[in-house]
Amino acid sequence: MIKGLTRSGLGVFRDDEQYITRAAQFGFQSVDLDPLELIQQYGGDYSKHLLESNRVIVGAFGLTVDWRTTDEQFREGLKSLVETAEAAVSMNCFKCCTYILPSTDQNAAAFMTTATRRIRLCADILGAFGIRLGLEFVGSHHLRTKWTHPFIWSMADTLDWIDTINSKNVGLLLDSYHWHTNGLDVQDLLNLKLEQIVHVHINDAYKVPIEDLLDHERLYPGEGGINLVGFLKSLKTIGYSGVVAQEVISSTLSQDSTELLTRSKTAFDNVFGNI
Amino acid sequence: MIKGLTRSGLGVFRDDEQYITRAAQFGFQSVDLDPLELIQQYGGDYSKHLLESNRVIVGAFGLTVDWRTTDEQFREGLKSLVETAEAAVSMNCFKCCTYILPSTDQNAAAFMTTATRRIRLCADILGAFGIRLGLEFVGSHHLRTKWTHPFIWSMADTLDWIDTINSKNVGLLLDSYHWHTNGLDVQDLLNLKLEQIVHVHINDAYKVPIEDLLDHERLYPGEGGINLVGFLKSLKTIGYSGVVAQEVISSTLSQDSTELLTRSKTAFDNVFGNI
Amino acid sequence: MIKGLTRSGLGVFRDDEQYITRAAQFGFQSVDLDPLELIQQYGGDYSKHLLESNRVIVGAFGLTVDWRTTDEQFREGLKSLVETAEAAVSMNCFKCCTYILPSTDQNAAAFMTTATRRIRLCADILGAFGIRLGLEFVGSHHLRTKWTHPFIWSMADTLDWIDTINSKNVGLLLDSYHWHTNGLDVQDLLNLKLEQIVHVHINDAYKVPIEDLLDHERLYPGEGGINLVGFLKSLKTIGYSGVVAQEVISSTLSQDSTELLTRSKTAFDNVFGNI
Amino acid sequence: MIKGLTRSGLGVFRDDEQYITRAAQFGFQSVDLDPLELIQQYGGDYSKHLLESNRVIVGAFGLTVDWRTTDEQFREGLKSLVETAEAAVSMNCFKCCTYILPSTDQNAAAFMTTATRRIRLCADILGAFGIRLGLEFVGSHHLRTKWTHPFIWSMADTLDWIDTINSKNVGLLLDSYHWHTNGLDVQDLLNLKLEQIVHVHINDAYKVPIEDLLDHERLYPGEGGINLVGFLKSLKTIGYSGVVAQEVISSTLSQDSTELLTRSKTAFDNVFGNI
Repeated sequence: MIKGLTRSGLGVFRDDEQYITRAAQFGFQSVDLDPLELIQQYGGDYSKHLLESNRVIVGAFGLTVDWRTTDEQFREGLKSLVETAEAAVSMNCFKCCTYILPSTDQNAAAFMTTATRRIRLCADILGAFGIRLGLEFVGSHHLRTKWTHPFIWSMADTLDWIDTINSKNVGLLLDSYHWHTNGLDVQDLLNLKLEQIVHVHINDAYKVPIEDLLDHERLYPGEGGINLVGFLKSLKTIGYSGVVAQEVISSTLSQDSTELLTRSKTAFDNVFGNI
Repeated sequence: MIKGLTRSGLGVFRDDEQYITRAAQFGFQSVDLDPLELIQQYGGDYSKHLLESNRVIVGAFGLTVDWRTTDEQFREGLKSLVETAEAAVSMNCFKCCTYILPSTDQNAAAFMTTATRRIRLCADILGAFGIRLGLEFVGSHHLRTKWTHPFIWSMADTLDWIDTINSKNVGLLLDSYHWHTNGLDVQDLLNLKLEQIVHVHINDAYKVPIEDLLDHERLYPGEGGINLVGFLKSLKTIGYSGVVAQEVISSTLSQDSTELLTRSKTAFDNVFGNI
Repeated sequence: MIKGLTRSGLGVFRDDEQYITRAAQFGFQSVDLDPLELIQQYGGDYSKHLLESNRVIVGAFGLTVDWRTTDEQFREGLKSLVETAEAAVSMNCFKCCTYILPSTDQNAAAFMTTATRRIRLCADILGAFGIRLGLEFVGSHHLRTKWTHPFIWSMADTLDWIDTINSKNVGLLLDSYHWHTNGLDVQDLLNLKLEQIVHVHINDAYKVPIEDLLDHERLYPGEGGINLVGFLKSLKTIGYSGVVAQEVISSTLSQDSTELLTRSKTAFDNVFGNI
Repeated sequence: MIKGLTRSGLGVFRDDEQYITRAAQFGFQSVDLDPLELIQQYGGDYSKHLLESNRVIVGAFGLTVDWRTTDEQFREGLKSLVETAEAAVSMNCFKCCTYILPSTDQNAAAFMTTATRRIRLCADILGAFGIRLGLEFVGSHHLRTKWTHPFIWSMADTLDWIDTINSKNVGLLLDSYHWHTNGLDVQDLLNLKLEQIVHVHINDAYKVPIEDLLDHERLYPGEGGINLVGFLKSLKTIGYSGVVAQEVISSTLSQDSTELLTRSKTAFDNVFGNI
């Protein structure tokens, strides 16, 4: 598996160059970032050089299309989706991700029909570029009731949705936090087929009942109560060899990236050392 | 347009033969029934003879597949779906219908993903036989909250769902009662495209606020407060020339079919006489 | 029906402004053009002004995506497809067209699988903007054997393909020349459903056996042997009220647009005067 | 991997019971057969008992729907498809297969559109039962020109077709003979993803140029010139652990099933002993 980073939980970087360079310095092999922004900043050649000279790959990029609100907003994003897909391919990145909020102020059934159609179109566009789309289920309990109507938050419902979307290149973004907040165990991971996983996020949770865990107060891998060794071992068992990217969403962290990168490195060494 | 009947609001018939014969006697040109049951009772030849000698067609048949509960129940119905489709084709009937309950005890978003997949498969099977599938939105307000979570009940949401199902042969079953309970007007019908309508139900409602109308207490066309002349004129304007089938769901009716057929005939004469 | 033009058979215009202005002067109500190029030349506001002040609409635009060669070429065109769709919507144009060559040097079956996937993606992108895609079958006999393997050229096969593509917004671009070269008659048009027609081209053919007609030697409407009055009457009967755009492909025409517009006006007056 | 049989190359069995029993006696762990016929002969319970007491599973069953000729023929088969799917599930078999003839007397492109639609419907029906559908490419050179127009015969074109069919449960039936007649090597297998393989056939070919190999003159594994050890090793490397079923199509074999089973056992022992 490839040790990766997202920007969450790393403080502030001056720019992508610093993000990439420092990721490499601390032993990470991939970064999640927007490949279109990267190229717009540095040009294609220098972007490639930056990645290659640091032996860092782009792990995945976020779906920038707004599939949650109006048709106008949705259409607005399609042009940049194509541009971003082109940019991603040129950076050898073939994974795109988006997350599913577990409740909604819209009528849940009606929103689901719209979302299905929109996500399918995004997936089909990405598919033309050989890019897969990972859908992240978000299990945090407080978010399940934050908006009026329950939407979906479980792995099973997300897989069922993926079935209905019916595009071959759609799978899961599996986040250890939501595996945990859903009360799942290693067997649930072992039941997955490799092709169902597009991307993986890792982070840890306070040792409190899962009902009380807040989505924006996460810990570095190994610092909390999630069975991350079991998580990684299970993924390995079913053949996953892709990126495992840290995503520590937290409002209480320092902004000192050196300190946070050090903490991240220690976290990864601890957890990966035990699998 | 073709004046049609369903069994709702007609009391009890001895069998399909009586249903067909009496429909003809009272001037109706179509009956909604199960073509497979028809053939199983009378054989294909006599069934055809029954229809032709009475100059009655089969308007539409109900989808017997259970798409609302378990995968097992759903699969169970697929075999008879194929048989029913064959039977329908042999009786020259190319319309199948099902209704959407406006609330559900299941998670609405998750149920919508499952329902989308199941309805798509039913539609695709029917499509192989040239049969269209009409989805009926049910607007009755008391049913919107009868089960835990709101599902969909509006024409707009149903059309959106049809878009997502993405099978060419799926459209609306338009029922005057639900046009009314949704607070729609003639312009909403005039905005429809002909190909969006698969089948039409007609019946009337008590003159009370639409919020208070009960789904199972309907009136015969012209006896209540729905603008049925406007309803029919609008359908005619957009080119609809198919079956308009009476469906008077009511728990308080007599079971005397002669009396009820007479009442139905009067109702149709009144309403159709004014368009 | 709306009398329209394409640039084929009109000689050379200085620019789109002249094309639009002169179309209007000669009584035409629509022009087929590239809405993105239009806006890039004149900006959105002036483009709208040009169209509105001349009471001319954009009839349809050509699909610029290359769906016939490599995946790279195909992807290359997707970005401008989104941009063109946006431009088209802003000019109130909701029709896009492409044509099908009747033979191919590729393995015909393999090319068909690729083409199906690519056209479906284009259609789905266009669908997000409410735009329909018309596929034009090309019946010219000499083109059926111009390349190694037969592809498809009949209306029936094209409708069958549209069924398989399975996107609701795909239909036919019906060209009178190919209706003629296919040996079809008015009944074949009367059998169509309105929603199967996206766009219509009109032009005429020399009075020779259809096997001898060359694709690039067409006549103005009414100058040749096609039953164009029957063609238009049939379209009217099934409810078509959209654009009928002249497309006179010919290598032997003068380049004097005044002369050719005069000839076009006469042609339309003759043919439309008789329906 | 599971050592399996098909009936091809085994002479005549009295019935399925003998087929199953003798397969077990000669060390085979699976048989390809029609689960509906099995149940119709023996009933569900005895069928299960037959399989379980012999420790034999049903490897795969053939798609009995005729997707190659008329719509009527196609529809005709849909009912038994559902019944067969039910039967297969009750026998714990989740794999269905069909083969693609490499040439056709129909217009190849038009046939491809029809075939795509039909195969998609079959796959979607099977998918409702959790059954996957394997498409077998047939590379035999003499069959590529046996009918008027070339269809598809390569693994790449078949994978491309599978992409276009766009049902998640469709993949390859990989037959060593056609891997060989296509001139493919082990790297082509190593490039496959596990989920692309539904079922595997094994048999051998005479040591003549692949252009001269006849489809109906095959040898038992290890008796000919195909690199079957490389074939199996590659499948193992990419994680395939399913059934490898012998299919020796030959018009010159004896009908003595004991002799042929003995030859099959020796063949499997030789080949599997070397991986």
